[in-house]
Amino acid sequence: MTTLTAEHFKRLDAEDPLAYCRELFELPENTIYADGNSLGAMPKDAFACAEHVVKEEWGNQLIRSWVSSDWINASTRVGDKIAPIIGASDGEVLVCDSTSVNLFKLAAAALELNSGRCKIITEIGNFPTDLYILQGLEKFSKGKIELVVLAKDDILDAIDEDTALVVLTHVHYKTGSRFDMEAVTAKTHQKGALMLWDLSHSVGAMNLSLNDCEVDFAVGCGYKYLNGGPGAPAFLFVAKRHQDNVQSPLSGWLGHSSPFAFDDDYVPANGVKRMLCGTPSVVGCSLLEVGVDIMTSVDMKLIRKKSIQLGDLFIQLLEQRCPEFTLVTPKEASLRGSHISITHEEGYAIMQALIAQNIIGDFRAPNVLRFGITPLYMRYLDIWDLVQALVDVMTFEKWNNEAFKKVQAVT
Amino acid sequence: MTTLTAEHFKRLDAEDPLAYCRELFELPENTIYADGNSLGAMPKDAFACAEHVVKEEWGNQLIRSWVSSDWINASTRVGDKIAPIIGASDGEVLVCDSTSVNLFKLAAAALELNSGRCKIITEIGNFPTDLYILQGLEKFSKGKIELVVLAKDDILDAIDEDTALVVLTHVHYKTGSRFDMEAVTAKTHQKGALMLWDLSHSVGAMNLSLNDCEVDFAVGCGYKYLNGGPGAPAFLFVAKRHQDNVQSPLSGWLGHSSPFAFDDDYVPANGVKRMLCGTPSVVGCSLLEVGVDIMTSVDMKLIRKKSIQLGDLFIQLLEQRCPEFTLVTPKEASLRGSHISITHEEGYAIMQALIAQNIIGDFRAPNVLRFGITPLYMRYLDIWDLVQALVDVMTFEKWNNEAFKKVQAVT
Repeated sequence: MTTLTAEHFKRLDAEDPLAYCRELFELPENTIYADGNSLGAMPKDAFACAEHVVKEEWGNQLIRSWVSSDWINASTRVGDKIAPIIGASDGEVLVCDSTSVNLFKLAAAALELNSGRCKIITEIGNFPTDLYILQGLEKFSKGKIELVVLAKDDILDAIDEDTALVVLTHVHYKTGSRFDMEAVTAKTHQKGALMLWDLSHSVGAMNLSLNDCEVDFAVGCGYKYLNGGPGAPAFLFVAKRHQDNVQSPLSGWLGHSSPFAFDDDYVPANGVKRMLCGTPSVVGCSLLEVGVDIMTSVDMKLIRKKSIQLGDLFIQLLEQRCPEFTLVTPKEASLRGSHISITHEEGYAIMQALIAQNIIGDFRAPNVLRFGITPLYMRYLDIWDLVQALVDVMTFEKWNNEAFKKVQAVT
Repeated sequence: MTTLTAEHFKRLDAEDPLAYCRELFELPENTIYADGNSLGAMPKDAFACAEHVVKEEWGNQLIRSWVSSDWINASTRVGDKIAPIIGASDGEVLVCDSTSVNLFKLAAAALELNSGRCKIITEIGNFPTDLYILQGLEKFSKGKIELVVLAKDDILDAIDEDTALVVLTHVHYKTGSRFDMEAVTAKTHQKGALMLWDLSHSVGAMNLSLNDCEVDFAVGCGYKYLNGGPGAPAFLFVAKRHQDNVQSPLSGWLGHSSPFAFDDDYVPANGVKRMLCGTPSVVGCSLLEVGVDIMTSVDMKLIRKKSIQLGDLFIQLLEQRCPEFTLVTPKEASLRGSHISITHEEGYAIMQALIAQNIIGDFRAPNVLRFGITPLYMRYLDIWDLVQALVDVMTFEKWNNEAFKKVQAVT
């Protein structure tokens, strides 16, 4: 293996067809932002959007903006823009609520759809809100639903004729490892169960093909790789073939077939709109739309290609220069998403030392350092600099253990 | 009854202790905004807030803002600010999700708390989302819960030993009539049932005393009289005495006792925080906080006093000058909220004609014209001008029926 140099990374930046995208984002100077898998960076247009929505649409047009600024269609309009990013069609995606709320709506609806079956299967160590929401659903069902939580390798074999629904996060939030969406969905269907994918750590970081994989349901997050802003609304996907047969337990007024008729009885809207609940965050939808517009302007295959390349280089550099870290994320690109996790027993202090130098990743207990690879605004050279900073921190630790303990103590 | 004149209204404006508040809001010129009960006006500080949250907190501080800008406590921080507005205490109110989602969470939690009882009582013609959410809960319970929907006058007598929960909207969205919170809550408790109030059309428009009335649960809207912006997050209230015993069916990660421990098993947080679900809209919470800060800076009794006075004057002027309208809202101030509804068979066209002159109220089928009284930014003279515009529209109609039909045809 050749030894990598900074020059190599600079050359890759010069050749990068996505390099221009970085200019679309506001990024603080002298900062390497490797936490876009937790909160994506701010598109420069987001500020003009916020100004327009707040000052003109709210401040000046007031209630009239429900029609004149199309607030009333924000959920479906932005949903339809997300659709091509995840391999879905028009009328299959809605922007609304949080990932957690959407997961509850879809899991409950799926269980009704596959009634007669009682089991939900999910993964040990899945993102906590996925586990907690399913636990809430189980508790609330008073014994009618059984949640089965299994290790990754045991899941496929456990899907059986009692299984109503399989709920998995496509890319694991901590390890960065990725399920084979097509194979798992196929196995799930083979047993007559339905498939719900949480795309929070996939959407915007790789090309996805929900309909090609015949996925039934999906949810995902707006504030990570879609760069929709803090607490951005989430999205949900319901395959066309299920839309006439699902009903949301959270049957709020905007999911009604005629919300402005103000009828006393709930009649679900046609299509995916029936999964709407209350009034969505208008400002949140508009800010998310800015991030989604950037995402739809680029080829997701280029995004994925750059993500893999950045990840491969990061792994390679770590092996060459920081052998004291253990790679948690699969080395094989087809098995991982777009963040790379490594472990070290002093992981928390190491991450604090990086953050103190404006190199921002995040830490997940007990010992995981997590670095998000965001092809839209991350440079190849950022990977070089990031590993250089890790080398420096570790050298500092080795040479000056007392000082290192101080960093640890104050953080 | 003396005949009112414009001079009288001008004098009241000159003497109004709340007159200065209008300057805190951005209001389009030559507009009378009488729809603050649907979407409140924009506080001038909202724009600076949006700029700061988007550019500085998101754009510059990025993920660090969860701590440095206290995003992590936004729900409880803004909730604690709403508490005094509704007569609640610190630690009883959360800002999160939509009114619809919060209603689902609290109604489901209340039913668990009062298990053994199966009946939910609510009002015919209640705001649709309240009815629809309870219908969803009933359907989802598969026969374990019975929703009983009754005419207003039949509700008190129907509360019995089978009743688990009474869910009512304090001020009716269409008629503007108001329940006696203290009496209804007392009767509900007398029968061993729990009380959940929807405060969407009350909060910010009048002084409320949830704890004095011993209310169990409440939800409310952020984008009406609280002036939190379009699709602002909603709030929920859980009385301290119930907090250790309630559990949300939507048990998302932020309601966990240690969300950042990323444990596999849900353990509810102490206090009201257990009713949190997913990540809240950070931008939405911040904008709402601006509106709430204005509201907490004024005496709610002054707000209510001005609301009553504006409403009384509006009713009096209508009687004197527009006898062709029928008043739907109770004339007696103690029986109404802060919007006034009138009916006319040509109601839709009349409202369109008003809106064409920048006099903005709203229309609710089949024949209701609804005008929101917002004491923070509505002038006494606005009431005079509003009725004058109604007089002009009706005169126009009488004198030029053909032209009026044209207005109706194009809207």
